[in-house]
Amino acid sequence: MTVKNITPASLAGVMPPLPTPFDAQGEVALGKLRENLDSLNRFGLTGFVILGSNGEYVYLEESEKLAAIAAARESIPSDKLLVAGTGTESTRATIRLTRAAAENGADVAIVITPGYYKNAMTGEAMVAHFTALAEASTIPIVLYNMPAYAGIDMSVDTILKLAAHPNIIGLKESSGNLVKIGELVQGVAVRKLDFAILAGSASFLLPTLAVGGMGGVAALANIAPQQCLDIYNYFRSGHLEEAQQVQLQVLAANAAVTTRFGVAGLKYAMDKLGMYGGAVRPPLLPLNAAAASEIDGTIESMK
Amino acid sequence: MTVKNITPASLAGVMPPLPTPFDAQGEVALGKLRENLDSLNRFGLTGFVILGSNGEYVYLEESEKLAAIAAARESIPSDKLLVAGTGTESTRATIRLTRAAAENGADVAIVITPGYYKNAMTGEAMVAHFTALAEASTIPIVLYNMPAYAGIDMSVDTILKLAAHPNIIGLKESSGNLVKIGELVQGVAVRKLDFAILAGSASFLLPTLAVGGMGGVAALANIAPQQCLDIYNYFRSGHLEEAQQVQLQVLAANAAVTTRFGVAGLKYAMDKLGMYGGAVRPPLLPLNAAAASEIDGTIESMK
Amino acid sequence: MTVKNITPASLAGVMPPLPTPFDAQGEVALGKLRENLDSLNRFGLTGFVILGSNGEYVYLEESEKLAAIAAARESIPSDKLLVAGTGTESTRATIRLTRAAAENGADVAIVITPGYYKNAMTGEAMVAHFTALAEASTIPIVLYNMPAYAGIDMSVDTILKLAAHPNIIGLKESSGNLVKIGELVQGVAVRKLDFAILAGSASFLLPTLAVGGMGGVAALANIAPQQCLDIYNYFRSGHLEEAQQVQLQVLAANAAVTTRFGVAGLKYAMDKLGMYGGAVRPPLLPLNAAAASEIDGTIESMK
Amino acid sequence: MTVKNITPASLAGVMPPLPTPFDAQGEVALGKLRENLDSLNRFGLTGFVILGSNGEYVYLEESEKLAAIAAARESIPSDKLLVAGTGTESTRATIRLTRAAAENGADVAIVITPGYYKNAMTGEAMVAHFTALAEASTIPIVLYNMPAYAGIDMSVDTILKLAAHPNIIGLKESSGNLVKIGELVQGVAVRKLDFAILAGSASFLLPTLAVGGMGGVAALANIAPQQCLDIYNYFRSGHLEEAQQVQLQVLAANAAVTTRFGVAGLKYAMDKLGMYGGAVRPPLLPLNAAAASEIDGTIESMK
Repeated sequence: MTVKNITPASLAGVMPPLPTPFDAQGEVALGKLRENLDSLNRFGLTGFVILGSNGEYVYLEESEKLAAIAAARESIPSDKLLVAGTGTESTRATIRLTRAAAENGADVAIVITPGYYKNAMTGEAMVAHFTALAEASTIPIVLYNMPAYAGIDMSVDTILKLAAHPNIIGLKESSGNLVKIGELVQGVAVRKLDFAILAGSASFLLPTLAVGGMGGVAALANIAPQQCLDIYNYFRSGHLEEAQQVQLQVLAANAAVTTRFGVAGLKYAMDKLGMYGGAVRPPLLPLNAAAASEIDGTIESMK
Repeated sequence: MTVKNITPASLAGVMPPLPTPFDAQGEVALGKLRENLDSLNRFGLTGFVILGSNGEYVYLEESEKLAAIAAARESIPSDKLLVAGTGTESTRATIRLTRAAAENGADVAIVITPGYYKNAMTGEAMVAHFTALAEASTIPIVLYNMPAYAGIDMSVDTILKLAAHPNIIGLKESSGNLVKIGELVQGVAVRKLDFAILAGSASFLLPTLAVGGMGGVAALANIAPQQCLDIYNYFRSGHLEEAQQVQLQVLAANAAVTTRFGVAGLKYAMDKLGMYGGAVRPPLLPLNAAAASEIDGTIESMK
Repeated sequence: MTVKNITPASLAGVMPPLPTPFDAQGEVALGKLRENLDSLNRFGLTGFVILGSNGEYVYLEESEKLAAIAAARESIPSDKLLVAGTGTESTRATIRLTRAAAENGADVAIVITPGYYKNAMTGEAMVAHFTALAEASTIPIVLYNMPAYAGIDMSVDTILKLAAHPNIIGLKESSGNLVKIGELVQGVAVRKLDFAILAGSASFLLPTLAVGGMGGVAALANIAPQQCLDIYNYFRSGHLEEAQQVQLQVLAANAAVTTRFGVAGLKYAMDKLGMYGGAVRPPLLPLNAAAASEIDGTIESMK
Repeated sequence: MTVKNITPASLAGVMPPLPTPFDAQGEVALGKLRENLDSLNRFGLTGFVILGSNGEYVYLEESEKLAAIAAARESIPSDKLLVAGTGTESTRATIRLTRAAAENGADVAIVITPGYYKNAMTGEAMVAHFTALAEASTIPIVLYNMPAYAGIDMSVDTILKLAAHPNIIGLKESSGNLVKIGELVQGVAVRKLDFAILAGSASFLLPTLAVGGMGGVAALANIAPQQCLDIYNYFRSGHLEEAQQVQLQVLAANAAVTTRFGVAGLKYAMDKLGMYGGAVRPPLLPLNAAAASEIDGTIESMK
């Protein structure tokens, strides 16, 4: 394993969190994962996130996760990041998986907050958990704050404490709370930290950039990578009006493949667009016809 | 009463929601309200909101509200808006108060969602309530969506239905949900409506502008009107970096006088800055010493 | 006004919270209120609550409230309690209204937590508010904890502090949290207080009695007073099986006139049963046909 | 494996959900688990739940779970139930683990709702998930509804649909919602189903029994088994007053080892009472001194 010099700045830009493809028997289809990566490789994306919420990581065995990382590594050029989701409920399991992920080729681990015992997952517990992980990990850690799924919303104070650790380089903030994102950007600046704050969805990418965020991890970038990159690049080059226009245009499609129809919606849209989506694992349900028809309309309107 | 030609565009910019000053006996101090208005009049604010959440409207009698409107009118130049909060739980009381507010000099009524019977306050109920009000009102209506206090969060669909009414000209959106704000801006554009979307707090003014909002009603504008205007004007003139810098700098002060210490915090800060703040009405509690000391520090840091 | 000797024990049993009847023009129909009281008077109810949540108190003017109290007084025998809702957001308005309610004939005031500025309505604020009220009131106070509408859930500690005041004699607990109700009963016993804990709905009357509560204020008692009394009396006389049977049988009807269809559902059911229900005040919507049909079925099944 | 004839009635009574003991190196201490079971065996408990929320199941590997089941089986007499938690996020993993649990000696599987993708975990998804499991499982299934941890609250309708399946024999309801518990009992009766409803905590055991529940799975039964049994037996024998007295007395201790201090509190209390508690697995934090001191006081007061 060659160690890359990955810094918070390396995270700037847009990364899609890829779904995990399953074959007709419900097994992980590594070839399809690689085909999807190949298809996305021609865009100017910063890298690729696998095994996140869109990757149905909670339905995967540890062995399936490691195989997916190894397969993805083969399709991702060395100048693009392979970011792997390695969070579990347990600190020791998270450490073990993160170290194994690194050995299988992950450049960065993105780690969701544990969230089962919600009232026990205090700021103090989060600092202990992520600090132990950061100490033990051979690759840099990106925090993943996702209250809608984990049931935990790490506070600004907790995140800033963790941001001071040299092996914790960034945050994917999926709450959509722009005041919090602003406070984090300001806190990082005031404390002179080096730490990247990323939007957790394309739906608030432009507002995040407007208050000083560095980019986004966006499910929409699986099916509309260029639009996501346009928001980012227009903003960076000072073309705010164009950035705003694209931002507003993608909101309906983004909702369809995230908050409204979830991973099943995203996979359906990928199938329609010539990539491989396929089925979700139960207990997720297949997309119903009404939802499919809505997504058809949304895809049509984006053309 | 001369009828002004007030349109959604008239709402563009920044307006402070003024607290209602009380004297030592707890009675409304109209003279102090006028002094505060005089003090704020020298800034380039679009107008003034009274009798909103920061105005402790839930603690005021109807007669106190009408007297405050009449007093404010005398201090507000005719080229600046007097926007009065006239929402109550009841449709008929809201209509009566809104008409009386107009007679007392209000240019615009800003009307919070009723929220007591939360599960009955459906989109259908909101459309009926605000439509009846808009039909009966002699002045334009601005919707006020404030889930943290009213316990109701009007949906994008409901708001867009109401936005089509000619006498409903805008929305103060206090949820801080930037995806929703973007969807509203886009919905207004797609439906070719004329409707102004305003941030309900300075804490997300820049993100709101970035996705196409027209301004904000910001408690912070009582104590830092120029900074709020700077965010707005820098953004409008294409100086995004400067806008971002001011936006980030005001976050701590904004939290102190809103989410953290509320109206008591705002009034305390006004007292410190040479305006009249005074006491809050019970059951609101006076600011404790620790909070006061924090606000002192925040004010110092803003200088 | 003759002063009754009302103690916590006086609250034992079942009381219905009556809706406020409106005539075809939407005005309070005092005669209909008295007819409904006359109809309920033949049951063994402890007393009657007016101007509560089921009384649409948030849609009534102060003058309407006082007239309703005076009218109700004329129909309620002196050996039954007239309990009037006098809560408002403001401490001073609540005190004024409570004193006026006493002058108009109320025996007891039932007072909901203020709840607009939710994060400011701390335990400390609640203690100050209700203590000021209890000191100023000429009649005993019953606390009304109703998180679903007020957005505030007073803690066990706060309630027990208030329970020590001699002029605060009970609590209507509408959260349905039986652990909390048990902790309150136990706290009252340990501290040797005299304080009545009442279920806020017929839907958890039996469980409340089972952990030591003294009765209930139940919307269902407007349309099924005998069933509510049966639960209470069977329990008191040690016929737990019979109490359980009635408790389970009323759950569907109770949901229909409370959580599912609200005051409009309750009023519709009263109309069907030969009492006067009538219309609700906007923004509450009239009952739709599907809901009416469901209530018809529920009433039929209770016969 | 001898197949027992386990029916819903077999679940009646009280069962403790045992914590999973860890040794000084953080490994599962099977001997200590067996010692704890031996200690509890002398009480009249219906059986034992392992690998539930109190068993830190989310921190255990599959191999650790199966070893714990096999070890527990050796200490549990054949006339008492071994109920094993086998829920995971994934339907296929849950089926695999449930079948393996049966092979390792579990009599019954208790299965929590999956809850990661909260908005996708609809009633329809729950019916599909638990039906697939019930079809595939060689042992009966008890549903485990735990909104505070899983973030999902299965509705009465969904539960009643599942209750009709012959291999789904009961529900552990941890919401504490007594209206829901009553509606379930009534729904089971009306539909003539055979299905056991169990309280998920000792804190609402008596109210649950009062509305027709059949018993409880109670963390408190690890440290105060006799008191939990007293509530049950007093109730069953018609001694409601005595049942109430015990119910109220255990509330403080119950809160200490559940909602307030969680598994760390429970393990500490077990250590104090001569059983083996030991450490929790991170990210759970060790109990701090103030909490320990509170638990000391609570234990003292129970003697």
